Amino acid sequence: MFQSEVSIRVRYAETDRMEYVYYGRYAEYFEIARVETLRSLGITYRELEDSGILLPVLEYQVKFLKPVYYDEMITVKTVIPVLPAARIQFEYETFNNENVRVNIASTSLVFIRKETKKPCAAPESLLSRLRPYFS
Amino acid sequence: MFQSEVSIRVRYAETDRMEYVYYGRYAEYFEIARVETLRSLGITYRELEDSGILLPVLEYQVKFLKPVYYDEMITVKTVIPVLPAARIQFEYETFNNENVRVNIASTSLVFIRKETKKPCAAPESLLSRLRPYFS
Amino acid sequence: MFQSEVSIRVRYAETDRMEYVYYGRYAEYFEIARVETLRSLGITYRELEDSGILLPVLEYQVKFLKPVYYDEMITVKTVIPVLPAARIQFEYETFNNENVRVNIASTSLVFIRKETKKPCAAPESLLSRLRPYFS
Amino acid sequence: MFQSEVSIRVRYAETDRMEYVYYGRYAEYFEIARVETLRSLGITYRELEDSGILLPVLEYQVKFLKPVYYDEMITVKTVIPVLPAARIQFEYETFNNENVRVNIASTSLVFIRKETKKPCAAPESLLSRLRPYFS
Repeated sequence: MFQSEVSIRVRYAETDRMEYVYYGRYAEYFEIARVETLRSLGITYRELEDSGILLPVLEYQVKFLKPVYYDEMITVKTVIPVLPAARIQFEYETFNNENVRVNIASTSLVFIRKETKKPCAAPESLLSRLRPYFS
Repeated sequence: MFQSEVSIRVRYAETDRMEYVYYGRYAEYFEIARVETLRSLGITYRELEDSGILLPVLEYQVKFLKPVYYDEMITVKTVIPVLPAARIQFEYETFNNENVRVNIASTSLVFIRKETKKPCAAPESLLSRLRPYFS
Repeated sequence: MFQSEVSIRVRYAETDRMEYVYYGRYAEYFEIARVETLRSLGITYRELEDSGILLPVLEYQVKFLKPVYYDEMITVKTVIPVLPAARIQFEYETFNNENVRVNIASTSLVFIRKETKKPCAAPESLLSRLRPYFS
Repeated sequence: MFQSEVSIRVRYAETDRMEYVYYGRYAEYFEIARVETLRSLGITYRELEDSGILLPVLEYQVKFLKPVYYDEMITVKTVIPVLPAARIQFEYETFNNENVRVNIASTSLVFIRKETKKPCAAPESLLSRLRPYFS
């Protein structure tokens, strides 16, 4: 498996009138977590798209353990648990300021060709960087 | 069980550069679906909060079957599958313009007291309106 | 000038921990106001884009007079004050549940070709529908 | 005057189907710019709120000069041009990856008491830190 982590400051815009981060905004944190996980492997998601591959989300699950509040600096720990094939999995654990785990989540994304919108294999540029972590 | 449905027009703001609705924005559609489901029972979520009860989301799962595009009029069909107790479940199916099912989702929310942030039972005002659908 | 109005229900997602609608979310209401103003003229912004014309926002000003709260049904009154040429202006006034004016805003958008990203004239399909209101 | 700057990575969620950052999302960048400007003075907006003072936005203007794209690292340069009294002004200039200015903006915010929602003077904790820059 491959692991990475990223810290994110909670924006005022992300809170709701319950004073918690709105449940829909966590998806953005996990997007950042995925993108920075790839960047830590030397791959930018932007370049992946520019090379003609899109990576839409197929499945997303999240379980909220504790609320997250305005201005907290949260840390998302991300794991790619299996070598990607047609799909790529990401698993996330988020920790707050006090290092308390506040949620766990997972996403499954599918590689598709931008032109045809048809599924395709994970690009070799990604696989070659990931393989060392899965042997 | 209790069923309800609501139609929502996709905003430009909700799309991303893939031309699909951003995966994080669906949470807002399901929020609308919950709120309108309660309203169709004669309960406004706003009044529930004003009476001192909050209803944060504990779990959220979504499976995307088809993308949704800008300006589509989607319909979310919502089901409350079991009579609420400490938690309330909602299950959703979303259909696009052409009545094709584009995703399925579910959320679990917990009743908490605004003052104490401690869990509490589902309010009787809600239960009394739901019971006829669960006998 | 041409006038139109649209009603919008405030989403929980749009509020922030101040219990007001977050100042950045009003831009979405004005987007809806523009799109529905065009629709009331028989033009869908979606078709405009599909025909190769984009309409990015160049300038946006908003003055907040009163806060807007969760679940309020607001009404945005929109005016196209002058016949569009290279740009199109929209002016907005938003009213709350109690018909109190809560903000005034304006946007200036520019017609550009999708292919070249260069400015172009307002399309004749739009102008022909607007001219009767400006004579 | 007092100056500060902050860098922000553009999220996928912030783009729209035009491939630009959605015009409504810039408000979040300016929120971050304000909050980090105050933090650079030794003040956290969170603490200001916790001490009973809210700072809602009264006016917001933005002029877009160039689009901003996914994954760009933008820099917002913020200026507090005058010592705050009942209101506080912020002026912003945003620069992209290539140091090209992409927009200019300004906001005016008002100090209000959380309890009464009535306007109040800028807190001395803020003024004492700002005065050295305005003499």
